[in-house]
Amino acid sequence: MHVTGAVSGDPSSLATPGRRLRECLHGTTPCQLMGVHDGLSARIAVAEGFEALWASGLCMSTAMGVRDSDEASWTELLTLVATMTEAVPVPILVDGDAGYGNFNTARRFSARAERVGAAGVCIEDKKFPKMNSFVGGDSGHQLVPAGEFAGKIRACKDAQRHPDFVVVARTEALIAGLPVAEALSRADAYVTAGADALFIHSKVSTPVQIAEFMAQWDRRVPVVVAPTTYCTPTVDDFRELGIAGCIWANHSMRAAFTAMRDVCQQIRADGGLAGVEQHVAPLKEVFSLFQYQKLEEDEVLYASGNTGSEQASR
Amino acid sequence: MHVTGAVSGDPSSLATPGRRLRECLHGTTPCQLMGVHDGLSARIAVAEGFEALWASGLCMSTAMGVRDSDEASWTELLTLVATMTEAVPVPILVDGDAGYGNFNTARRFSARAERVGAAGVCIEDKKFPKMNSFVGGDSGHQLVPAGEFAGKIRACKDAQRHPDFVVVARTEALIAGLPVAEALSRADAYVTAGADALFIHSKVSTPVQIAEFMAQWDRRVPVVVAPTTYCTPTVDDFRELGIAGCIWANHSMRAAFTAMRDVCQQIRADGGLAGVEQHVAPLKEVFSLFQYQKLEEDEVLYASGNTGSEQASR
Amino acid sequence: MHVTGAVSGDPSSLATPGRRLRECLHGTTPCQLMGVHDGLSARIAVAEGFEALWASGLCMSTAMGVRDSDEASWTELLTLVATMTEAVPVPILVDGDAGYGNFNTARRFSARAERVGAAGVCIEDKKFPKMNSFVGGDSGHQLVPAGEFAGKIRACKDAQRHPDFVVVARTEALIAGLPVAEALSRADAYVTAGADALFIHSKVSTPVQIAEFMAQWDRRVPVVVAPTTYCTPTVDDFRELGIAGCIWANHSMRAAFTAMRDVCQQIRADGGLAGVEQHVAPLKEVFSLFQYQKLEEDEVLYASGNTGSEQASR
Amino acid sequence: MHVTGAVSGDPSSLATPGRRLRECLHGTTPCQLMGVHDGLSARIAVAEGFEALWASGLCMSTAMGVRDSDEASWTELLTLVATMTEAVPVPILVDGDAGYGNFNTARRFSARAERVGAAGVCIEDKKFPKMNSFVGGDSGHQLVPAGEFAGKIRACKDAQRHPDFVVVARTEALIAGLPVAEALSRADAYVTAGADALFIHSKVSTPVQIAEFMAQWDRRVPVVVAPTTYCTPTVDDFRELGIAGCIWANHSMRAAFTAMRDVCQQIRADGGLAGVEQHVAPLKEVFSLFQYQKLEEDEVLYASGNTGSEQASR
Repeated sequence: MHVTGAVSGDPSSLATPGRRLRECLHGTTPCQLMGVHDGLSARIAVAEGFEALWASGLCMSTAMGVRDSDEASWTELLTLVATMTEAVPVPILVDGDAGYGNFNTARRFSARAERVGAAGVCIEDKKFPKMNSFVGGDSGHQLVPAGEFAGKIRACKDAQRHPDFVVVARTEALIAGLPVAEALSRADAYVTAGADALFIHSKVSTPVQIAEFMAQWDRRVPVVVAPTTYCTPTVDDFRELGIAGCIWANHSMRAAFTAMRDVCQQIRADGGLAGVEQHVAPLKEVFSLFQYQKLEEDEVLYASGNTGSEQASR
Repeated sequence: MHVTGAVSGDPSSLATPGRRLRECLHGTTPCQLMGVHDGLSARIAVAEGFEALWASGLCMSTAMGVRDSDEASWTELLTLVATMTEAVPVPILVDGDAGYGNFNTARRFSARAERVGAAGVCIEDKKFPKMNSFVGGDSGHQLVPAGEFAGKIRACKDAQRHPDFVVVARTEALIAGLPVAEALSRADAYVTAGADALFIHSKVSTPVQIAEFMAQWDRRVPVVVAPTTYCTPTVDDFRELGIAGCIWANHSMRAAFTAMRDVCQQIRADGGLAGVEQHVAPLKEVFSLFQYQKLEEDEVLYASGNTGSEQASR
Repeated sequence: MHVTGAVSGDPSSLATPGRRLRECLHGTTPCQLMGVHDGLSARIAVAEGFEALWASGLCMSTAMGVRDSDEASWTELLTLVATMTEAVPVPILVDGDAGYGNFNTARRFSARAERVGAAGVCIEDKKFPKMNSFVGGDSGHQLVPAGEFAGKIRACKDAQRHPDFVVVARTEALIAGLPVAEALSRADAYVTAGADALFIHSKVSTPVQIAEFMAQWDRRVPVVVAPTTYCTPTVDDFRELGIAGCIWANHSMRAAFTAMRDVCQQIRADGGLAGVEQHVAPLKEVFSLFQYQKLEEDEVLYASGNTGSEQASR
Repeated sequence: MHVTGAVSGDPSSLATPGRRLRECLHGTTPCQLMGVHDGLSARIAVAEGFEALWASGLCMSTAMGVRDSDEASWTELLTLVATMTEAVPVPILVDGDAGYGNFNTARRFSARAERVGAAGVCIEDKKFPKMNSFVGGDSGHQLVPAGEFAGKIRACKDAQRHPDFVVVARTEALIAGLPVAEALSRADAYVTAGADALFIHSKVSTPVQIAEFMAQWDRRVPVVVAPTTYCTPTVDDFRELGIAGCIWANHSMRAAFTAMRDVCQQIRADGGLAGVEQHVAPLKEVFSLFQYQKLEEDEVLYASGNTGSEQASR
């Protein structure tokens, strides 16, 4: 586990987050975006080597104790995202659901995401409020007209401050039970409206729909996927399909879910900690990831009362 | 795992959170407070049967990606606590560190905690900003004078709205390397000032200090402990010592830490999900805990356009 | 100007905010709700004698620097409302616009408003995102079907924790250019669905539409109005019409707007303060309203280091 | 009154806020910073021509309904500042009181201020929690040792991301009743530690102390003042003293205070609006400042469903 330093004042952040996400999506191998839901999951993912993160709507909602049906407000979510952008130096793509209303709420969400340090946002063509893509049948996932959603994409693009910022258009056509042709038609409209990348989502157990889409897509912009139900292909398989980015969307949260449930069960059964002690991270591992030692050193440096001309020359 | 319903409108909440925490602390067996850090960990702990929760400063800070040295503001922490009180119906005791400044910040913190639905707060007699009790040697943990801290306790008590609300005084005398006699002296002053309960903290590997304290304490108010370093005793052992509450302070967070690290490592090594699929909670388990089915039923009930006189008679 | 004490620990708050708002709406003279937008405007309104407040969506949005078209999120607005409920002891009715989405977002907003100490919420039957009622022509104000909105009202009622909490249904039928008959029909459906009161809005320059509505309304529940465009009638005139509540919706904000503009202009023109000194409140008036002297007294009481048995007996 | 456009996507923001504040402080005439407390006061100040703003701790606290004694948390204040940086394109200097704790909280505050778009922060050498400089006698304003405060300044400087960001050191030596020599000595230490500018504060009724300080100060860095009690000098007078920046700290809030009080009194006395109608801004003036017309035009542009290739070429 590599310890990652705090970001503040880091001279390595000369490239904007958007620039770094773009580079990741235009690499020779698919960019792998680890799904995260808070500052801790973000720090761990970066310490384990992930070069980009996906601030998952499902996972952030779950961490907040609410359902993935726009129960959290867009500003609550972005406040949570801000804890991540402060904690880690890698680019973060933010799940923006359906844009929280009309073109104006979508562009406000997108502009605020950029302000809090996100590399980009991804918005989808479902009606607001949305339901999680894996809940209910096709009928629970109604799309807005393609033209209306294209307007949202255009509004987000026109509202960004820095040209590097990334706006990803996600089509839920396949989630809604519509054919690949509809997904392609919508993808085309969204890219024409300005989308920097596409997210094509599927809930079947193999990447067959993704493959069919990629076979016909002209690849003007990078395509990303979140292989939650079709979990066997590897990043190499996706590269062969022409995929630019793989989002491992919710596995960190789901691993935490199981681990927290198990430890609660064990402590409850035992009435004590002995049974879980070997299964939880030692506190020193937590302290190491967060560089507590650096804080103690800074205490000496800044709180000694001797800061003066020597420091000024640093 | 028992699924716990949403709290809103729950008629069971007639007793205040403070009242329920008091009952738990005055039961025949020690109250077990599970340490939590967000809405999800709170929901899981309650689903596994815990009747009270500890909103841990260490764990909330860690989840937010910052150090347990008052790096998060008191309002950021209480915003996080609010997601927990909205998510679960059990009483939550909130870790208030050193009270974030003087008597006035302490009472503002405490009053706000009550407003957001907490059952009580716990404040400690260290200087602000504090350092986590398990970091550094004794010298890194300076206490404020007992009289000053007694004033903070009194201010919190005078600021509460409902008499049930619980203010716990935590002494860090043993953490600072002071003798048990000092802990007893401070405990006495804090209870005299109005503390509803005591939290005596220790960082040695056995409960020997706790036992020594309890042997001499007059037990005017309940005493709670957080056996992080002395992890072998059970709740029965603590009952024999006269302890009223056991805080399993940080094990859910530490379990999540390990699980998230492992799943990140595995996905990173594999470039795919196949290796972790069996180790993460199925999405349907997540959806079940959050009662997604209830939301779909409510959709039929409220969004059908047929709400009228029939509904009004419910 | 009467100085109003801080609310914390105030024993007068035995009646819930909802109960006090209900009493105000069922009095012999119309309840006067002063429109406010932050903690200061709330404190001033209460100091001047207003017994209830209207947390105006227009004014809060304007104070936040955004437009009254749901540009602020519902949680941003409720965070602002929380500063008011902490600052003053009178009941606050919160403008909830169109409920920020569907029945689920509406009930989440309403339940959160109750949690942060509001006395009630008011939601209107426009499409989300809404536009301010005084902007644009009739066509810019589309209503949702009455049945859909009745479902929102029912959902809010079913989500409240305390039976006292007030849910007000506001119809924008007249704002949308529809006839009084439509307003009456909708009012009936909303009350049948559970609304505790009605808000009938009009943008013409006399209360003629209001009078026509009241002449035909069966007065099962109290009716409130916000006479912004028809500004000549007094509270006595409204009582004769059978109105239960008058919302002076935005005049405090608009007064502040003019005053701040004038003082900025003057300072800018003069390059100094001499010209405005007589037109701004002395600092001692500010300090008096906020009871700075009480804080200095508390400093002596709590921070002297002598809090002990004497205090405990208070 | 000049209407100022929304900031998002504004190509004029190529210079960082810090750069623009530095230019203002190094101009040939003193920079005039208008004190503001929310998005509205910021928009009005900019519309009236102010080129820089002071996010006043007193005014923001007052707007939030709390006292200027660090009753609001540092993150609450910065959330409020964020509404201002989103609303206006001019540089904002943020009042950071005493840094909210030690060197670590100070640098976290400063770094967060930079993240939310501030041009700089100003921190003062009083103990935390501080009391407003105009409340109480000299004894209520205790300073921290100069070395300790120099460490805070250094920590803030080392934590900034962009070299343009401005850290202003404010000495309260004169507020605490200490001689000008002490203010000079502290000023020297703070500039040596890295402060980009100085704020020298005085509570007497003439600028005599300021003049004495400036006569002896070597002017290595710009000096700013907030002439609240000594209100007769103009910007020209201050230029002659060598002052680089004049903060008109709290006059917009105090003007709003008086105006809101008066309008509340009048409405309360009249039971109606007729008496205040001529004294409050017409709604159309509010709508004009916030460019509601632009939103209606954007509605046509983005929500028509016709966004496509034509738009993409913009």
